[in-house]
Amino acid sequence: MLKKVKVTLLDIEEGRPEITLTEADAEELGLHVKDRVRLKSDGKIAVGIVNIASKDLEPGTVLVSHEISELCRLESGQTVELAPARKPSSVAFIKKKMDKETLSKDEFLAIVKDVLENRLSETEIAAFIAALYINEMTMDETEALTRTLAETGEIINFEKRGIFDKHSIGGVPGNKVTLLIVPIVAAAGLTIPKTSSRAITSASGTADTMEVLAPVTFNAEKIVEIVNHVNGIICWGGGVNLAPADDLFIKVEHPLALDPHNLALCSVMAKKIATGTKFLVIDLPMGNGTKIKNIDEAEKYAIDFIELGKRIGIKTECLVTYGDKPVGRAVGPVLEAQEALRALEGEGPSSLIEKSTGIAGVLLEAGGIARKGEGKKKALKLLKSGAALKKMKEIIAAQGGDPNVTSNDLKPGRYKAQIKAESDGYIVGVHNKAVVDIARAAGAPRDKGAGLLLLKSKGYSVHAGDILFEVYSDSKYKLDEAVKLARQHSPIAIEGMLIERIPSYSVLETSKE
Amino acid sequence: MLKKVKVTLLDIEEGRPEITLTEADAEELGLHVKDRVRLKSDGKIAVGIVNIASKDLEPGTVLVSHEISELCRLESGQTVELAPARKPSSVAFIKKKMDKETLSKDEFLAIVKDVLENRLSETEIAAFIAALYINEMTMDETEALTRTLAETGEIINFEKRGIFDKHSIGGVPGNKVTLLIVPIVAAAGLTIPKTSSRAITSASGTADTMEVLAPVTFNAEKIVEIVNHVNGIICWGGGVNLAPADDLFIKVEHPLALDPHNLALCSVMAKKIATGTKFLVIDLPMGNGTKIKNIDEAEKYAIDFIELGKRIGIKTECLVTYGDKPVGRAVGPVLEAQEALRALEGEGPSSLIEKSTGIAGVLLEAGGIARKGEGKKKALKLLKSGAALKKMKEIIAAQGGDPNVTSNDLKPGRYKAQIKAESDGYIVGVHNKAVVDIARAAGAPRDKGAGLLLLKSKGYSVHAGDILFEVYSDSKYKLDEAVKLARQHSPIAIEGMLIERIPSYSVLETSKE
Repeated sequence: MLKKVKVTLLDIEEGRPEITLTEADAEELGLHVKDRVRLKSDGKIAVGIVNIASKDLEPGTVLVSHEISELCRLESGQTVELAPARKPSSVAFIKKKMDKETLSKDEFLAIVKDVLENRLSETEIAAFIAALYINEMTMDETEALTRTLAETGEIINFEKRGIFDKHSIGGVPGNKVTLLIVPIVAAAGLTIPKTSSRAITSASGTADTMEVLAPVTFNAEKIVEIVNHVNGIICWGGGVNLAPADDLFIKVEHPLALDPHNLALCSVMAKKIATGTKFLVIDLPMGNGTKIKNIDEAEKYAIDFIELGKRIGIKTECLVTYGDKPVGRAVGPVLEAQEALRALEGEGPSSLIEKSTGIAGVLLEAGGIARKGEGKKKALKLLKSGAALKKMKEIIAAQGGDPNVTSNDLKPGRYKAQIKAESDGYIVGVHNKAVVDIARAAGAPRDKGAGLLLLKSKGYSVHAGDILFEVYSDSKYKLDEAVKLARQHSPIAIEGMLIERIPSYSVLETSKE
Repeated sequence: MLKKVKVTLLDIEEGRPEITLTEADAEELGLHVKDRVRLKSDGKIAVGIVNIASKDLEPGTVLVSHEISELCRLESGQTVELAPARKPSSVAFIKKKMDKETLSKDEFLAIVKDVLENRLSETEIAAFIAALYINEMTMDETEALTRTLAETGEIINFEKRGIFDKHSIGGVPGNKVTLLIVPIVAAAGLTIPKTSSRAITSASGTADTMEVLAPVTFNAEKIVEIVNHVNGIICWGGGVNLAPADDLFIKVEHPLALDPHNLALCSVMAKKIATGTKFLVIDLPMGNGTKIKNIDEAEKYAIDFIELGKRIGIKTECLVTYGDKPVGRAVGPVLEAQEALRALEGEGPSSLIEKSTGIAGVLLEAGGIARKGEGKKKALKLLKSGAALKKMKEIIAAQGGDPNVTSNDLKPGRYKAQIKAESDGYIVGVHNKAVVDIARAAGAPRDKGAGLLLLKSKGYSVHAGDILFEVYSDSKYKLDEAVKLARQHSPIAIEGMLIERIPSYSVLETSKE
């Protein structure tokens, strides 16, 4: 079955290889919505997913998305041949996983390749993610998929260096520990090339925060050059093509709010294979609004990460950390970068310093820099001595930022609201999710200056009228939105507080230098 | 968070409420692909699924699909307000089913309503179908979903008549038994309002076949009128809005090639609730290429249909039928209508007559027209006496067709190819799927005249040169395609035949009267 049709190019890129036909043309070719259709033009072939236009499309005409027109170098009005195409074989493997069977490495490879080459529809990828969520993967499968995700992407080769790394599982706001850990560990002479993510649902990803201080987007060659020069880097993972299929899975997981346990393991570890990591510390923050809800979950992650690490040659240690309130006081790119820099300069909230040196200490012990049990002390010494600050300045310079930057140079958004306590009492809780929502409403992570500064935190005693937290924004409008949200979902709970009362607030305009 | 943007209307209907933003605008609103966004214009509100345009879209501009522009009566260039919208609550119930919990009727209702009102994305519906497939439904859930599917659609009220019905599970080609059963049962004085489907993957659905003889698209009022008048109807289910959510589920199931067992039960029975059926015979064809592969599966369906029927007040009987080759000899709309009419006129292949009267007989016994064990004999009598033909003519007339039509009036496609046996031997098999594929390649079901006529079938002894089957088509080109397919996948297997030999064929042009 084959049909000649005229193409019209869609003038936007829709992010999927789609061919839109009239219902009659589709029926003639025996095609249904989401079937695959092969388009042939001058010997060039592309396979698209069928969409049916309900009206306003001439019979004998099809709309093609950019993916298709680019592949076949089509022009509007050109005549091409259409024919039904078969499903890729990986669809059968997705079905197999739905049928509770286990998949081999070759089968995962077929799926991952088809995902990368845009041959699977969103519906099929959703079914795959659902199958992985419901019918969990065995550890053999997890290993196979981890290796597959790594091998189908770029591999960064740092040659003979022993690579150290850390990874934080998401959910706790203000977790800028990487900005302390990397310079501490690099200052000790270990190699720590940290690729980080931007915020997806948080107020600031590590890459967003580091970007306040220096560029973060580099290709593999440049990453190797920087790391060879200064032992460490804090860059954006999206600049290199590490485990690219994982990003495509995440695009489907996110709207489904699904995060299959073993796929999360694969996602983290594939990227570590790709950077040649030999020793890894995983930070598992546990608390309200974090991914890890309780100690059983934390232990499950820890055991599985360690087991998977063993299988793929990465010595892994896991730390369950306190995640019931933000790390430090600052949330949002500029505020977090400022707090991290201040800590490197010698001042800073103890929750941030404790956590950062604790994690760095484990890496120092693993790297033979400190004896067992003395890593944290050594990390603290590197911090207090200014060695970590010096290394951070080297890293900032190597990444193309200004090494003379100080914490005082960083300015949050020019509009500020102060949220005050309405009553006396103890602060009994900080709601992580509300903190993030308010910071995002204020403009974070896109507006670097937007965010929250918590002046009082869990365990503090406050009096009516005390400032609980400040909200910063680059726009008066967004600040109002953020404050409105703070009224609806107070992020700080005071014992005995009437939840429904609206906290008073005032808007101050601070001048920008 | 809220943003004013200008809308551009998409000039095709894409079948989903989609709002396409630039990446920067999406980020500003904290939106990701497949999130939901609320569009507000002049007090009218629509919720769309977010799509990100990679290029060629002006910042501050969004593309909206027809669903959105119609709901809000938008014009291109108009300014509207966008804000992130929450996921509908039914997403949590889908997640619950993925987590192996059981759902209540209210939870199914929430999902079905959101499907019907276009509030769930394709990804979310795919996850729901995957969850139903992997974590099967309990019978309580099956009953709840069946009732929900029926109640969220149109209900046809035939008043006090006891409604009889039959349903065939798919997969056996040429299964035109409905065109005999309905007139036989209606001739006996029972009421049988048969709503049928068009072909999805087959060569001719019952509605496609009946349409050769009379119109098949009627609203509920007209169906009641016809049935009150002549006791029976053979119409297209798509003309009425019976269990409409089921059709939307099928749209997702089809590309996934998934058919969750209990959802198949719901799908059949919801439509029977909607037509007020009190007694139902289910035909379960078992054989190569049919949905039911073996007797265990057939029994599972039978037990579950009967149990579900009991719960919803439909007395159900199941018949496992021979499905290892097509029913009768004709496959394709005109050829099947002709064969059915010929059987009503007194001649016809015994496989068709045996099966039709067997099923009709069960209905006659249930309706008190024949004593237990004598239904088939009674059905055969109604057929042989010409009473069924007379009733069929009444039904054709009531549906607006020509009651004077005879089987000889019906003409298949004007191009014909005869496929001959290459060797002597016994026919050991007929491949159902190949038969369907060839008929579809010839143009069925869209081209009513396209199809296959099997001259020799399983069990026959043939000599080299004997005509095995004829292919009909309205187009020479499609006939060639069909014959090419017949070469690749011979639908008739002769004992000792060299499978790879190409059967000879000749093309004859028959003149149309």
